Amino acid sequence: MTKFISEQHLFKSTPAKIVMLVVDGLGGLPNPSTGKSELETAKMPNIDKIASNSSCGLTIPVKQGITPGSGPGHLSLFGYDPIEYPIGRGVLEGLGIGLNLAPDDIAVRGNFCTIDNNQNIVDRRASRISSAHSKPLCDLLNQITIPNVEIEIVHVKEHRFVLLLRGQGLSYNITSNDPEEIGVPSLKIDSIDANSAKTASIVEMFIKKANQILEGQNQANGVLLRGFSKLPNLPSMASLYNVRAASIAAYPMYRGLTQLLGMDIKPTGSTFEDEIITLKKHYSEYDFFYIHYKPADAAGEDGDFNKKVRALEHLDGVLPQILELNPDVFVIAGDHSTPSIMGSHSWHPVPVLIKSSLTIKQGVTGFDEKRCLNGSLGTFNAVDLMSLILAHAGKISKFGP
Amino acid sequence: MTKFISEQHLFKSTPAKIVMLVVDGLGGLPNPSTGKSELETAKMPNIDKIASNSSCGLTIPVKQGITPGSGPGHLSLFGYDPIEYPIGRGVLEGLGIGLNLAPDDIAVRGNFCTIDNNQNIVDRRASRISSAHSKPLCDLLNQITIPNVEIEIVHVKEHRFVLLLRGQGLSYNITSNDPEEIGVPSLKIDSIDANSAKTASIVEMFIKKANQILEGQNQANGVLLRGFSKLPNLPSMASLYNVRAASIAAYPMYRGLTQLLGMDIKPTGSTFEDEIITLKKHYSEYDFFYIHYKPADAAGEDGDFNKKVRALEHLDGVLPQILELNPDVFVIAGDHSTPSIMGSHSWHPVPVLIKSSLTIKQGVTGFDEKRCLNGSLGTFNAVDLMSLILAHAGKISKFGP
Repeated sequence: MTKFISEQHLFKSTPAKIVMLVVDGLGGLPNPSTGKSELETAKMPNIDKIASNSSCGLTIPVKQGITPGSGPGHLSLFGYDPIEYPIGRGVLEGLGIGLNLAPDDIAVRGNFCTIDNNQNIVDRRASRISSAHSKPLCDLLNQITIPNVEIEIVHVKEHRFVLLLRGQGLSYNITSNDPEEIGVPSLKIDSIDANSAKTASIVEMFIKKANQILEGQNQANGVLLRGFSKLPNLPSMASLYNVRAASIAAYPMYRGLTQLLGMDIKPTGSTFEDEIITLKKHYSEYDFFYIHYKPADAAGEDGDFNKKVRALEHLDGVLPQILELNPDVFVIAGDHSTPSIMGSHSWHPVPVLIKSSLTIKQGVTGFDEKRCLNGSLGTFNAVDLMSLILAHAGKISKFGP
Repeated sequence: MTKFISEQHLFKSTPAKIVMLVVDGLGGLPNPSTGKSELETAKMPNIDKIASNSSCGLTIPVKQGITPGSGPGHLSLFGYDPIEYPIGRGVLEGLGIGLNLAPDDIAVRGNFCTIDNNQNIVDRRASRISSAHSKPLCDLLNQITIPNVEIEIVHVKEHRFVLLLRGQGLSYNITSNDPEEIGVPSLKIDSIDANSAKTASIVEMFIKKANQILEGQNQANGVLLRGFSKLPNLPSMASLYNVRAASIAAYPMYRGLTQLLGMDIKPTGSTFEDEIITLKKHYSEYDFFYIHYKPADAAGEDGDFNKKVRALEHLDGVLPQILELNPDVFVIAGDHSTPSIMGSHSWHPVPVLIKSSLTIKQGVTGFDEKRCLNGSLGTFNAVDLMSLILAHAGKISKFGP
């Protein structure tokens, strides 16, 4: 949708300021013992008060029934259809650890795995080998050289690493060697198109050398590679929406993702309070601010209902520091739900509010999954949120005479 | 959606009669001093009573966050996706003043502008020169002749006019000479495709002659042309829906627009009461009637909250005259919201009701933005309204065995 509005040249630059707070894993599900979700359980007087003066609703992160990763979940919130703009697993893994990828780098998600004497895979994650064991193995793999290609292995965590390939004429159009099952050998890397044979043979050579180096290891004696990818070519938010956008996020992955959208990445500390200080510092310089709150998702992923409740209550406590900036439009959204009782992301629609002077004030009394269902925004696709936000900020001209 | 139903030949002709009242700029926003919108403030006992016996909901005029002009707003209500069927600015301006456009006429929106001695535009609207001054200038421009082309200038209001071009092989695929900024010269008219070079040179010649005629004028010494367009080729409502449709509207623009959809345009007077008399006169002849109420939008555009409230109350007072016809389906819809506090059209979803014997009667107690939110129709795209209306009238057959 935003593409259509952009093609019609309806987005206009105005001084109005937008602060978009993305609460990672915002939505949840009722605790079976109380019947109340994390949002319903948390005491959030500040957020509830904002909700009662806002346009409220629920966003469907990608499509009904689809559980997104943080990548697609965030892309939707910024008006980029994640189905139209896929981001490779290798790239996302690289962004997640703060790698500075160049446009032609091939990024690959790597796993250490365990292979038996018959060359069959017996564990695709090498018993989730500890980082203390796997990091030195990455150092060993970094000694591999292949003519005319620069190779870099970056350790991520436990059995996971990122492989970077740099060189002339490399392609990501090659198959994985991961059969995604056990009891079978790893697969041969094949080229998918005519221009990828060279890359396939380079990767085959890398795997051969890696397996030689790892020979004799108990757990991590093989590597599985998948998600060969390059940075996607995304139109910038400035070119799409005519906004000057700043990104404030403590976690590398969210900085990397928003950098892809052309946002200015502001250095910040490791806590949400640090992020708010950064927001205040740069408040005069931009008209769109993305600020990210991670702890709700982390607690949900841990399956810790009470911890997620506390994370939400903590957010509520510090929120007035953002509100005292008095942005023209203030948004609270989530990239997806992370119900504690599932201990994982989910597809459930996510509460959202847009606070501005142009709201119907439909009498929603608080900010949770049930009350937002009766909000004036209804339940809608997250990819349409951005045009709603920009409309509330007076940044979209009239369509048609 | 309607296209699909039409392709499946599911629309069937029945004697059931539909009256669709379009209240221009129907929706609004709360008055900050009372917290109530225009619809909530207005005393509308008749409409509230109808709402309580109707299927109610909210329509999104075009897409989330998009503010439509009256053209796209109306197209949606009749089931035509305004993104799929764009209507050029020149055509709409021509329809707005009641011009009878032929299918091959090129209609252009023209502005008088002010140009300084360095040929730079200093005012794109010639200080909004009064009609008393600009009308005689249009008469002068009407003396321009160009071989093999018929040229007609029709004054609209103040600095605005419509230029019509008639002749063999004319095209609208040419660029505007309006740079849409000041301090720069007007642009050269260019052809966009191979078949448009001739039209581009004709329009260049017109501009040259116009500027010569206007030389020496203080304010209006130049012309800016944009929105080159022909009548769009829209399928008729009769062919799509199997209905005999009549249009009753006091304002030329709405007559022109509905004529594009193949409705029969019924001559009427200048007031809504006149329109109702016209409706009664032709009630036996058609099975679909569009009747247009303008004053709510006009008051909203003026930013006059109380005037909009009175316009709605006035409508409520005369409505029983329509209801006594006892149509099988009666609809109240709006082409867009015009909140008085904005003084302009907006993107906010618009209340809608469909009264028929086939309604869920979900207990909505009145007709406004908040109560319609809880109606059985929910919030949906206006372009789907027409199929809902025809369904309530029993005019859509079962799909599939």
